[in-house]
Parts: sequence; C-alpha cells; structure tokens
Amino acid sequence: MTVEQFATRHIGPGPDDERRMLEVVGHDSIDELMDAAIPEVIRWHGTLDLPDPATEAETIAELRALAARNTVAVSMIGLGYHGTHTPAVIRRNVLEDPAWYTAYTPYQPEISQGRLEALLNFQTMVTDLTGLATANASMLDEGTAAAEAMTLARRASKSKSPVYVVDADALPQTIAVITSRAEPLGIDVRVLDVERDELPAEFFGLHLQYPGASGAVRDQAGLVEAAHAVGALVTVAADLLALTLLRAPGEIGADIAAGTTQRFGVPMGFGGPHAGYLAVRSGLERMLPGRLVGVSRDADGNPAYRLALQTREQHIRREKATSNICTAQVLLAVMAGMYAVYHGPDGLRDIATRTHRMAARLAAGLRAGGVQVADVAFFDTVTARVPGGAARVVAAAAQRGVNLRLVDADRVGVSCDETTTDAHLQAVWTAFEVPAFDGAVDAALPAEVTRTTDFLTHPVFRSHHSETAMLRYLRRLSDFDYALDRGMIPLGSCTMKLNATTEMEPVSWAEFANIHPFAPDAQTVGYREMIGQLESWLAEVTGYDAVSVQPNAGSQGELAGLLAIRSYHTSRDQAHRDVCLIPSSAHGTNAASAVMAGMRVVVVACDDNGNVDLVDLDAKIDKHRDALAAIMVTYPSTHGVYETGIASLCAKVHDAGGQVYVDGANLNALVGFAKPGKFGADVSHLNLHKTFCIPHGGGGPGVGPVAVRAHLAPFLPGDPLGAHVDATPAISAAKYGSAGILPIPWAYLRMMGAEGLTRATGVAVLAANYVAARLRGHFPVLYTGNKGLVAHECILDLRPLTKATGVSVDDVAKRLIDYGFHAPTMSFPVAGTLMVEPTESEDLAELDRFCDAMIAIRAEIEQVGSGAWPLGDNPLANAPHTAAMVSGDEWSHAYPRSVGAYPAGVDRAGKYWPPVRRIDGAYGDRNLVCSCPSPEAFED
Amino acid sequence: MTVEQFATRHIGPGPDDERRMLEVVGHDSIDELMDAAIPEVIRWHGTLDLPDPATEAETIAELRALAARNTVAVSMIGLGYHGTHTPAVIRRNVLEDPAWYTAYTPYQPEISQGRLEALLNFQTMVTDLTGLATANASMLDEGTAAAEAMTLARRASKSKSPVYVVDADALPQTIAVITSRAEPLGIDVRVLDVERDELPAEFFGLHLQYPGASGAVRDQAGLVEAAHAVGALVTVAADLLALTLLRAPGEIGADIAAGTTQRFGVPMGFGGPHAGYLAVRSGLERMLPGRLVGVSRDADGNPAYRLALQTREQHIRREKATSNICTAQVLLAVMAGMYAVYHGPDGLRDIATRTHRMAARLAAGLRAGGVQVADVAFFDTVTARVPGGAARVVAAAAQRGVNLRLVDADRVGVSCDETTTDAHLQAVWTAFEVPAFDGAVDAALPAEVTRTTDFLTHPVFRSHHSETAMLRYLRRLSDFDYALDRGMIPLGSCTMKLNATTEMEPVSWAEFANIHPFAPDAQTVGYREMIGQLESWLAEVTGYDAVSVQPNAGSQGELAGLLAIRSYHTSRDQAHRDVCLIPSSAHGTNAASAVMAGMRVVVVACDDNGNVDLVDLDAKIDKHRDALAAIMVTYPSTHGVYETGIASLCAKVHDAGGQVYVDGANLNALVGFAKPGKFGADVSHLNLHKTFCIPHGGGGPGVGPVAVRAHLAPFLPGDPLGAHVDATPAISAAKYGSAGILPIPWAYLRMMGAEGLTRATGVAVLAANYVAARLRGHFPVLYTGNKGLVAHECILDLRPLTKATGVSVDDVAKRLIDYGFHAPTMSFPVAGTLMVEPTESEDLAELDRFCDAMIAIRAEIEQVGSGAWPLGDNPLANAPHTAAMVSGDEWSHAYPRSVGAYPAGVDRAGKYWPPVRRIDGAYGDRNLVCSCPSPEAFED
Repeated sequence: MTVEQFATRHIGPGPDDERRMLEVVGHDSIDELMDAAIPEVIRWHGTLDLPDPATEAETIAELRALAARNTVAVSMIGLGYHGTHTPAVIRRNVLEDPAWYTAYTPYQPEISQGRLEALLNFQTMVTDLTGLATANASMLDEGTAAAEAMTLARRASKSKSPVYVVDADALPQTIAVITSRAEPLGIDVRVLDVERDELPAEFFGLHLQYPGASGAVRDQAGLVEAAHAVGALVTVAADLLALTLLRAPGEIGADIAAGTTQRFGVPMGFGGPHAGYLAVRSGLERMLPGRLVGVSRDADGNPAYRLALQTREQHIRREKATSNICTAQVLLAVMAGMYAVYHGPDGLRDIATRTHRMAARLAAGLRAGGVQVADVAFFDTVTARVPGGAARVVAAAAQRGVNLRLVDADRVGVSCDETTTDAHLQAVWTAFEVPAFDGAVDAALPAEVTRTTDFLTHPVFRSHHSETAMLRYLRRLSDFDYALDRGMIPLGSCTMKLNATTEMEPVSWAEFANIHPFAPDAQTVGYREMIGQLESWLAEVTGYDAVSVQPNAGSQGELAGLLAIRSYHTSRDQAHRDVCLIPSSAHGTNAASAVMAGMRVVVVACDDNGNVDLVDLDAKIDKHRDALAAIMVTYPSTHGVYETGIASLCAKVHDAGGQVYVDGANLNALVGFAKPGKFGADVSHLNLHKTFCIPHGGGGPGVGPVAVRAHLAPFLPGDPLGAHVDATPAISAAKYGSAGILPIPWAYLRMMGAEGLTRATGVAVLAANYVAARLRGHFPVLYTGNKGLVAHECILDLRPLTKATGVSVDDVAKRLIDYGFHAPTMSFPVAGTLMVEPTESEDLAELDRFCDAMIAIRAEIEQVGSGAWPLGDNPLANAPHTAAMVSGDEWSHAYPRSVGAYPAGVDRAGKYWPPVRRIDGAYGDRNLVCSCPSPEAFED
Repeated sequence: MTVEQFATRHIGPGPDDERRMLEVVGHDSIDELMDAAIPEVIRWHGTLDLPDPATEAETIAELRALAARNTVAVSMIGLGYHGTHTPAVIRRNVLEDPAWYTAYTPYQPEISQGRLEALLNFQTMVTDLTGLATANASMLDEGTAAAEAMTLARRASKSKSPVYVVDADALPQTIAVITSRAEPLGIDVRVLDVERDELPAEFFGLHLQYPGASGAVRDQAGLVEAAHAVGALVTVAADLLALTLLRAPGEIGADIAAGTTQRFGVPMGFGGPHAGYLAVRSGLERMLPGRLVGVSRDADGNPAYRLALQTREQHIRREKATSNICTAQVLLAVMAGMYAVYHGPDGLRDIATRTHRMAARLAAGLRAGGVQVADVAFFDTVTARVPGGAARVVAAAAQRGVNLRLVDADRVGVSCDETTTDAHLQAVWTAFEVPAFDGAVDAALPAEVTRTTDFLTHPVFRSHHSETAMLRYLRRLSDFDYALDRGMIPLGSCTMKLNATTEMEPVSWAEFANIHPFAPDAQTVGYREMIGQLESWLAEVTGYDAVSVQPNAGSQGELAGLLAIRSYHTSRDQAHRDVCLIPSSAHGTNAASAVMAGMRVVVVACDDNGNVDLVDLDAKIDKHRDALAAIMVTYPSTHGVYETGIASLCAKVHDAGGQVYVDGANLNALVGFAKPGKFGADVSHLNLHKTFCIPHGGGGPGVGPVAVRAHLAPFLPGDPLGAHVDATPAISAAKYGSAGILPIPWAYLRMMGAEGLTRATGVAVLAANYVAARLRGHFPVLYTGNKGLVAHECILDLRPLTKATGVSVDDVAKRLIDYGFHAPTMSFPVAGTLMVEPTESEDLAELDRFCDAMIAIRAEIEQVGSGAWPLGDNPLANAPHTAAMVSGDEWSHAYPRSVGAYPAGVDRAGKYWPPVRRIDGAYGDRNLVCSCPSPEAFED
C-alpha cells in the first residue's frame, strides 16, 4: 500500500509493527493467523465485490458530486423538522471537534465530566421548557420518544385498558412509529380528533401534539383533566421553541413530554441524527427509559456528574427491561443544549417571536389575498385551504425554491422557522397567487396559551452569549474529557476505532445537512443514490440480500430485525411462533428487543468455555419447537471468541422452523473473512458506529441498519409517511433514519475497498491476540477459541486477583485513568473482568503503552496483596488522582505523591488530569438531582 | 441589537456589563467617554459609509455567491505554487482549530511549547531537506525570503561589490521582489542566464533557482564554486519536494537556501498565506532574520523550547536592524511541518517520485507527438516549444479546466504536482493536439543531481503516520499551549480579539483555497470583487483614498508605505528627501523599515507624559527641513494614549515638505471615531490581524495593507509579474498577498457594519479604562491623555515595585500563568512595565478575573517586600508552577504547594498547567540548538 491509500492511515500498525506483533502472537502472517482463528466452516474465501479503493481526495470529489445532485431548498414543510442556524462556534467546536465526537458513552464519569455537564444543561433546558420535573439525556428522535412515552404511560397507568388515544393532529410519522411499536405489545392505538371526537371510556394514555401538525395551538388543559379522570397518563409532544412563548405542558398537568430538539441548531440532515427528548413529572423519574445524568459527589465530597439509576438499564434488566433503548443522541443533545446556552432565554424568546411573527404575516397575507386559513391560534405553522389547488401551490412554491407541505388535495401547510426571510414569504404568497402583504399584523398569542413563567434561569444560560465566552466554555468542558483524540479507548464490543476526518467533513456540507426528510424525491437524488450504494455495499460485506438504514441505533436495528422475523412467521400462518432463544452471555438489549417484538425470551446456557451450550440448545429447541421464532446470537460471541458451533447452531434452529438473528456488534472481526448472511444467519443488525466508523459522539448518534436474506426483505422497515404497519413497520420517524451521517460509512467503505477492509479485520484480530499474548502471564485470558486464539477482543479475568487481594475491577479501571487510559469494558459479559478491544487503528506504540500500564498495575496489585500498601489506602483504591489531590498541602497516604500522580511510563508534560476524584454513584441515586446544580454547590 | 446581530457576539460585554464598567470608569455612556477621551481636533462625527450589517448566515451566503464566481481549475502553472492535498486531519485540527489559530506569537515560551515544537519540526524539515545547518521558523513567502537572502548575503560577504547576480531562470515574481528591495539599498541586480552568460568580475551574491522556473534541473556546483571564488555568497531557491530526490543545496556548498513550503499541504489561496523558508550554512546562523526556535532548559533542567537569539530582532535593534521582518507564517509553517511528520521521509519521496513520473510521462507524450521539449533534466515541470502557438495551447487547456503557464508566444510551461492525475495529462496532451501516451518512460534523474543522503531521520518524522497517531500528536501539542480559546491574551498593541468562526470558515472553501495566484482573471472574478470591496471598506474606515492588500505582514505594509513616499518625492524631483523622523517610543520595526526604504532615521524625543515632544520635533524639522521625507508615528501612541498634538504634528511635517506615516497598529482605538486619512496622515499600514480579526496563528499569518491618500496612490505596490520597480514595487510575491485569508476581514466588516464597528471601538476603550481604573490603586498607570483617560490599552508601571521588592516584571508575567492568563506585553514600549489591551471581545467576568489576579499578585509582591517570603523562593520567582513541581514528593519552598498551584480565584478543575517551568533563555542562546533534540534528551 502507498502513502495515498487511506487504509494505511486508518490502520495503526505499519509493516514493522505488524511483524513484531506476529512474532509475539506466534504466527507468520495475518492470513495464517486468521486461518487459525476462524473456523473453516464459516470462513469465506472470496474477495469482496466493492469498487476499487478511492483516495481521500477522490472520495471527497465523489461525495461532492453526489451532494451536488441534492437540491437545498428552503424548507417550510415543518412536521417536526425545521430550518435552523447552527451557531458556527458550536458547529466547529462540537460537531467538528474530535474531542467531542470521538468520545465514548460516559460510563467512566470521572473522565466524562464535560459532556455530562453538557447533557445536564440539555436536561435542564428540557425540564425548564416543558415545565416537568425530570428529563433524560436524549432520545433517538421524536417518533421513538413518543413511542417510549406510550410504553411508559402503560407501565405507570392504573388503567387496565389496552387503549392508547392519539391526537389525529399528531405528526404522521409519530403516529406511524407509535402504531408500529404498539402492535406487538397488544396496545390498541386509536387515532382521534381529540377536539371533536368522543374519547373512549377507558384508555391508559393520551398523546397530544402541541402545536399540532396543522399548526393549531389549542388549550389542552381540559383533555388532560379528562384523561386523568380515567387513570390515563397524558403525553404532550411539544415543540421546545414554541414553549418559550406557550404555556408549558407541565403547567396544564401533563405527565410526560416528548419531542425533538432538532431546531435548536441541529441540521435536518434528511431526517437525522437529532436529539429527541423525554421528560416526566415528579414521581415518574425512575420509570424513564434511556440515559439520565445526575449529580452526585466525588471522594472529596465535591459535586460530580454521572449517569444516574443505571440499574434501570436494559443491560442489567434484560428481558425485564421496559425499553431497549441503549444509546442516546449525545453529540446532538450537546449541540442543542449549547444552542440554548448560547442564545439564553432572551435569545430563544427572540427567535420564537420572530418565527411567530413571520407566520402571522404569512397568514395575514394569505387571508388578505382571499385564501382561507384555519381560524385557530398558531405558533409557526399555518394550514391554508385551496380547494383542489394544493398540489398546484406546492409545485409553484417548489419552483421558487421553497418546499411546502402538501396536506391533501385541498390543504397546504406552511411552516416558518428561524431562517425564514421576507423573500421566503414573498415566494409563498406568489405560489398562492396572492399579492405581497405589508400591513400591520397582530402577532399576539391567546392569553390562555401564553407562557407566563420564567425558564433557563440557571446562570449557565446567562453567561456564555459572546462567541469568545462560548468558545471557552466548550473548550473547558471538552478538556475535562478523555476521548480518542487523547489515547486508546479499548472497549470490548464497542470498536472505538478511527473516525477519519475525511469521513466526517461531508456531514457539515449544506447539501447533506440542510435537507428535510420529506423533501421531494427530485431534490434528494444524490442522497438516495449514496444510500443505495451504501446499502448494497453493506449487503456485500455481510452476505445478505437487502439492507435498510432506517434504524437509528443498534437497538432499533434489533427491533426491526425481530419484527421482520415476526412478520415473516405471520405471513406463513405461523404467528404463534413467539419464542426467542438468547444465550446467557448475550447483551441485555437483545432480550429487551425480543420482548418489544412481542416474543418470549428463553435463555440458553453457555458452557465452561463461554460458548453456547449446544446440549442445552437442543433441549430448549425441543421444548419450544413449535413456538420457536428465533435465536439471537452475537458472532463472534460477546466473549470475543469465534465459536466453532455456529454453523451447527444455525442448522438446528432452522430445522425447528426458527430464524437466526446474528447481532452484528462484533462484525469488525468478520469483514472480509466471513459473512453472516452466508454462514447461516437470516438477519443481522449492523452498528455503523462500531465497524463502519461513525463516531460514538459521547454516547450517540448510533446507526443500526438491519440486513436480511431475501425471504425477510419484504418485512424491512417502511416509509413512516406511508408505512403498512403489519409488514413494513416505522422504526424511526424518517425513512432513512440518521441519513445525515451516512456519508461517514460510505466514505469508509469507498476508501478502504476490499483489500483495506480485509486487512483491517486481520489487524484488529492480530492486535487483540497481541494484547492477549502480552498480558496472559499477568491476567488470565478468560475464553479463547481455536488454537488458543481470541477474535477481535479479549477478556482479562481479574476475579482471582480480586479474591486474593481485594483490589476490584473498578479499582483497576480507575487506576488506568492515572496511566492515561480509558478503561476497557467493565464486568461485561462477565462480572469482575475487563474486556479489551484494541481495534486495527491503534499502533504498536499505543498497544504497548496499554500493556505496559496493565502490567504495572498488576505489580501494584501485588503491593496490596503483599500488605505493602493497605487495602483501603493505595494508588488503586484512591484512583483516579486529581491534580488537586496530589498537590494538596497535606499528604497522608501510604504511598508517595509521585506514585499516585505519575505512575511508570506516564507522559508527565502531557498528562491528562481528571477534574474529579472517584464518584460515589449510589449517593447520587439516593439523592437524585438531574438538573444543573447552583454554582454555590461548587464552592470549596 | 438583537440576537441575530453579529456585533452582540463579537463584543464581550452585554448591556449590564457595560453599565457596571461605565460606573467604575465614571462616565455616563460610551459616547460621553469617547468624547472625553478623543481630542476633538481629530474626532470624526459621521457614520461610516458601509453596507448595513449582515447576519452570520447572510454573510456566509454572500461569500458563497462570491466564491461561486471563482473557478477552481486544475493548476499546472507551477512557478512556486502547486496543487497539494492538505491532509484532512491537519486541516481540521490545525487550520480549523482555535487552539492553533488563536494562539499568539510564542514570546511566553512556557505556555507555547506545542507550537514551538511544531516549529522546531518545521526547522528540522528545512535543514534536513536543504542540507544546511540552521533554518528559521518561516518567512512570509518565497519572494521575500529570497530578498532577505540577498541582504543577508550582502552583510556576510567580504565582497564590496554592490552587484547581486540573479539567475534568469528564477521565478519572475522573485526577481521582481528582489529588484524592488534592492533599489533603495543601492544594490545592483543583474539578471543573467547563468548557464551561458559570463558572470561579472565582482559580485557579492548569486541567486539560483533549483529547479529553475523553466523546470530545468542543473548541476550548480560549478556556479557555487565560481561565486565563492570572488567572495560571493550563493542562495539556492529550492523546491523542498524536489529535494527529496535531488541533491541538496548544502551538498554543493550553497550558503543559503530560500523558498516556500506551500506544496507541503498548504492551499494556494490565490497567493497566500504560506510559509516561506530560509536556511543558512553553519556560521551564518546569527545573521538569520526572522524568528528562530531553539532548545534551552527550564528551571528543572528539562529541555524546553523558546525563541532563540531574540536580541537580533528589529524591535531591539531598531534602525540597526538588518531586516524589518517581525511576524512569521507560523500557522502555515505548522501545517507544512506536520505534512512532513504525517508523510515521513518515505511518504514524501513517494509523492515526489509520483510527481516526477507524471512529468516524465507528460514530456514523453509531448515528444512522441512531435512537440519539442527542452532537453534538460527536470523534476516536475517541462517547458514545451510550440512556435507561435503557445497562447492557443494554453487556451485549449483552460477550456478543459487546466491552467498552463504561458511563458511567451512560443513556449508553454506545464507543472505536475501531488494532485496530478492521468486525466490531467490527457487534457494537456489534447490541448497540445498530441495523442495520449501510454509507452514506457524513463523517470530517472541524472546521477549528478540525484540525492543520496538521508533526511527526516528524527523519530518525530517516523512515528505519526496513522491518522489516529497524528490526531493525538496534534492534540498533545495544542494542549501544551495557551490560546484565546482558554482565556484572555491582554497584549498591548496586538489586539487579541475574537476570531469568529463565521469569519474563519470560508478560508477552507475550495473556491478560495485552491486558486493559483496567476490564474486567468476570468477565473478569479469573485476573489477580485471581494478584495475590491474590502479595499474600499478599509479606505472608508481609515479615511484614505486607496488601499493595497498586497503586503503580507505589517512590516511589509510599512515598507510599502515608505516606498510610496520615496517614489512620491522622486516623482517631484525631491529624491534627496531621505530623513525619516521617528519618535523614541516607536515600535522598532518602524526604524528598520525606514532603513530598508533607503531613509535615514532621526529620533524625536518624547516628553514626560510619553507624548511626542513637539519642541524637539520642531528642532529636528528645522535641522532636516530640506531632507525631510517623512515622520512615522503611531496613533494612538504606543503608550496607549490619544495624543492631542497629532494634528499639529501633521501640519508641521507637511509645512516642511514631509509626508506623515501613521502606523495603524492601534487602529482598534479609532474605527468609527477618527480617520487617519482625514486628520492629517498621508499613509498608513493596517494590521488586519489586529483590528480586523485575522487570527494571529501563533505568530502569523499577518496581513498589512497599505492605505494612502490620492497623491500617493500611483505608488502603491504593483503586480509582481509586471511591476515597474521604480513606482509600483513588488512587496510580496503575489499581487494580492495573502489573499486566501481576506474573507476574514471582509466578513468582519460585513457583519459589524458602521454601528457595530463603532461600538466595538467604544467598548475596547471602555474596557481599557475599566482595567486602568480597577488597577490604578495597585499599580501606577503610566501614561494617560485627556481627563486621565487611556485609549484602548494601558501601561501598568511595575518599576517602583521592582525597585522596592526585587520582584521583576518577568516574575509577574510568569505568575499570571499560574492564575490562568497570558501575560500582557512585557517591557514595551517602556522597560519594566506591562501593557494591557483587553479589546472589546472580553466580557466583564474575564476582565474582572484578570484584575482580581493582578490585585492578588500585588498582594503577593507585598509578601516578598515585607520579607514574609524570601526574594529567591516565592510563588512569583518560582512561577510558573507545573503540575509535576507541585506534586513532587519533596517540597521545601517557603510557601505551601496550594499557593503555588492554585492561587486565589483559580478554576481548580479546569486549571491550565504549563508543561515546563521557567525557561532559561540565555542558556539556549549560548548553546544554540535549532532542530529537534533526540528523544533521550527528555528522559528523566
């Protein structure tokens, strides 16, 4: 490979590194290593049929050409997606800054205080605007947030009714997602005109849109009261910008608010990613799905942030989980929260007022021109009546570069936003064939829906309004955090590899960023061609026949895959098949997804080697043969092993009439060497944010396409604006999910080509085996496969050491911070272990730095074991060490400061210092605080 | 102002801040303050005639429209400007990263170790490739580097001859710059065909191009020998990429190498900015102009970088300086150096080989098609002979989107580069009407010019070849540094204010970045329209009649302005006027520029108030009346005071037949309130990198347009490709200088408008007076003007405290680092003082943080004064404190660690730690090391 080939930049180890690593692992070549590691029964020996790799410059040129085939029109379609000005300082210093976008989910809170604070701002923004007590740290989009609100309402309601009432003026895609989610759960969705129709006698929940999709702003207090009277909970899907002027849902007694924060500075991106939100009234906070940031305290008693109530999460509760949501939309939530920080309450109110005034002028102009406009209060959207002429008006506006909403043959929706200008109004009036309007406009909202309460009163929303101040605030927070731009993040199962700049740059281009998901097809030719190519390349890589990129997280891909299996069985009159076999080692999300797909989870045991116990499998299949719907397995296993029994497992399940779901989380160990679609699986979801280089963004965005063999293809997700729920469910609110970041995997595949992808897999496996080989003498490597080899990750077993010395896996994880590392995956899939996935992007120097640190830590553990250091006061127990701690005037610890601060091998000048000491999670869960604490809390 | 108006983002203090600041300063409004501060005799009461301010979004849209009027063609023009692929990781994490671009010149080396290391890489790259001993940290461009080489040769040569021989195959724009620089210095430039013409009997220097502008690569060893035989020094202007394959200048005995590093990943930008380079053989290093980074040691004896040999600099040597170069092109030098780090020696050789092979194929194709190609060795450029048909070929290629060089009616130059593809060759062949060529090509270079020596052997050039490794290296270095993204940089005279993202973003657009300076006019319509608008807006702001943006640094603007004065006098038969009056308080560059413009410097005294002594001025005018050429003054003065005598000064000089040059360094105190062109000045240079928001980039790029009244307009800089040296000199190599960054000031002016600019000036003056008012009781404010007011900066006099306590201004500057600040300007214009310029971009919270820190430091000085802390061991003397120091196992200082580490008010969690302790500059000057030290040097 030459300097021009991207693969040499993506893959860390060069030829010299590779030679040295092979020596340690004891194989002659990567090919030979892979031959030894991968069971021949699944091994695929072809060359991936992908275009020859393009250079970075060529790839950018091709993407420019695709982008040029999209048309960036003025979007006045509305429906939950609005034009917005991303403040340039936020675009450059969050969206385009590796310190933010390469960060991992904040499971290690001591090294994640920056994004945790940013998320707390987000939560505070949502609770302030909605008037509710607690908001989580973002949902995947408005549609799924509304669906989660439905299931939350069902759990919390005392009503036994299966009926969920949905406002007919809700966003159509939201109705589609809700309906798709309801069906397998046996929920009876009733879409009603809640203003006119009579409500059912019994129902457990009510979903209202505020303002409605039509733009109407109605006083919903009476509906809330009526719902509460029958024990139902009320969700208000509210527009946060509107809430700066409108009475908050919490103020009329709503139990839940759901929605999107897209218009807070996050580009539309042809559908995503954006941060949805979910907020609840007091008393429901412990039922909230998703991630919740809370305030706790560190070992010095100082306030410190961390994820709260993690015991709720699906990886703990498995099939008892009430939601499968796993990731969030952290990067986008950070952007939206920072938009509120930058504008502050006055700025947001200004923007809302300006937007409302534009809509008021628009309506006045239409009325003055004789067009009938619905006679209701509105915020930013008006629905105009042009009997029989709607299509003509929409077409005329499109000709002027403005997209309107075609409601039906007689009605046109027009939505204003922050970016609306006089010229846009003019274009709309012209399209309606009415004269320009220049008269006075009464832009006041009716008193009964006008907001009278304050919001965003915390100083953080009132201190960073100059660009200089904002820039420094962003830098300060990102400096608190450890991300891939500082060093390795060896997280097993999470594949934290390079997110190349060339992959990232196109995400900011207007031709990808500023496209509405419901823009006319003629304006999205480039997008759809790119997505089509991506789907076909993913199909080639995985061996499947069809791929849908709609699921906007891995969990959603799982659900989509299981729903496809469910629909397949139903289509064959096998609707009774509802058992999903899941090995005990599986990721908890698997089980949660199965439940959401209406399946019963049956656990299959693992044997002593960590592999699926084929004897128990046989037994379970026998027991549930007639009801068997599917098995869900991860391959390589969550133990990081190429199980040899996989082909036989697939055959057994197929024989019993079941379908095989292979979780694609570990696909980075397969690409180019084996194809799930060819070795027996029927369906997989892929994690584009793992194997295909979408950055983790500090905990999202994720993208989880679902890939299927031909017989399942008819059951892939459909268009949420036209979904037939039975067969083609709406998994996300937008047809292509988080389309805005699909240039990233497209570019990765385009630049790597068959050879680069295959080599990446080989080096990833080599790196894991190198780490295993170097550390095996210091920590037992828990499970291995063929010839003692691991796949792309390895599990270091700390349990014997913990037993012997009392030093916990937590202590080791925190001590790694002192050495300048993010800890590996902790206690998954086996409690008391660390799972290390180095990936192909780490070079030998970094791998050695990590191994050296682990070996040094092992020696430190010995010091505790030997009694040289007391169990309660040693560098492990006190880790991580802050600068403030090691430079304190007093030092009474059993070891010198230098050992705490600068363990062997640490780069003294460039050392990363965590801003807080170890955090007491339990304290925070007992004293739940999920919005910004007062500044006084931080005073010494 | 509303949330939409950019001025509210650019200006730090909001209405509440402003009220509080006015209270402290004791004025009712900014208008009233300005009325009091600015002498009425210069006060301008109009409203600037500028377009109404545009929002950020509107500005981007307008710039997009201008950019769309440029045509990005494939550039095969060559002549020192080449297509190059900027590695995306470098673009995003250097060029687009505020941590790099908002940094100041590394005068405080302890907080600049990152960019100093990057510059040391640059120097090492240049010395390795040129085979010379010492390179500086970049020049402004190749033309000025060559001109500096000429004057260096003159100083170093033993020859008394005024003759400088220049290779006729040198770049034409280099010849123009050399000639322009030579004329006022009495140097006799002889442009000769050095291969054929006889050399003069006596000459002091010889300038060779390598490869020549024609592409020819010749063995120049004989010429070097011949030059040395008559005591002349030889400069080789060498292409660094070619030097990876070609014998280095140092290997044939060249004394000096000069050139550009543009093609190392820096976009052409329609002429700049790029980093020029200058390297010298051993023995000449102390004569090098510009900045030189060297290795020294810190208080712990660890290696540490800082600027070496600063005693050479023009601000110390004034009229004895041998160059006026003040700034460098740091940001671009960092990029070029990182390009070498990322590619490494093998990568660079690959790129060069590929480039050469393209050229060889091109030539073979032309020859095979019957086109005559000069029969010499070449690297990347071939000159083809098409008698009478050159224009036709060039036009045919342009039609295919490829720009060639029209040498003359019969010859066409074609230059290959890193970006050249087969399609480009095909287009060229078609333009020449020859068939495509697919035969074998001998791409070998002649043995006598082939490089046989190794280069870039230091590990830094062999360790960061994956994108992950590169990203981390860039992050590590930038984390070492303190820039505007961390906090205030209150540098008097340097106006370190916001460099807004919206101003910066267009710099990366291909339509601005990828344009060759000699592209046909039809392809640069948008650029020239933007520049025309910028020039006219700058003229409006300053009250002048004409502006040229050609000078690519303030120093070059000074030279251009003085040359205009010189030409004006000459044009009026007053060539004998050669005295330039300069106040004693002036910036040293003024005097150095005057000498370079062929003038004699006569110093005018200042009075006790720091103002120009008008009595001494009268005396000096009287004495030199007939020879008086000009006076150069800064306004407001370098003391930060609006001198009331300015109008009278201008009148006196004019009466004596002299011209008035007002240095525009302090224009930030005037915009909207006074216009130099209206209150008596004839010419000014402006610093776009001060008043008009081009970021300092860690020490460049700067842009120093020259602005003149109508009578001087004929003498503004000309087109370097067609300059008439007498009247319109070539100040830079490209007609519009650093055109690539002119979107920054354009956007600033466009977004601020008259009201915003005027308010910015008022707030800047308010902020300086606020700081003066808060600190006056703790440190005397040295000079003030009307009613005790300062202008936009204030001088804090530490001399009495130093005398009383022994604590030096240096101690205070270093202690400010512990408080989280960059020191103000130290000991300029008055030794022993600090000059503070807060600018309008700092909000009240940051101003107060600074004032509080200074007051706390004052209390610390008292502790030394009172004897509570010994003079040699106190927090000031030991500042700055590193984390390693305050967490050391031993602590034997006279004060607790916490006082060293976390003085009052410091943000503990977010504290910035310098990577080294105080640096011993003198040690480094005695033991000069100016290339990367071995890694072992850093071992404990």
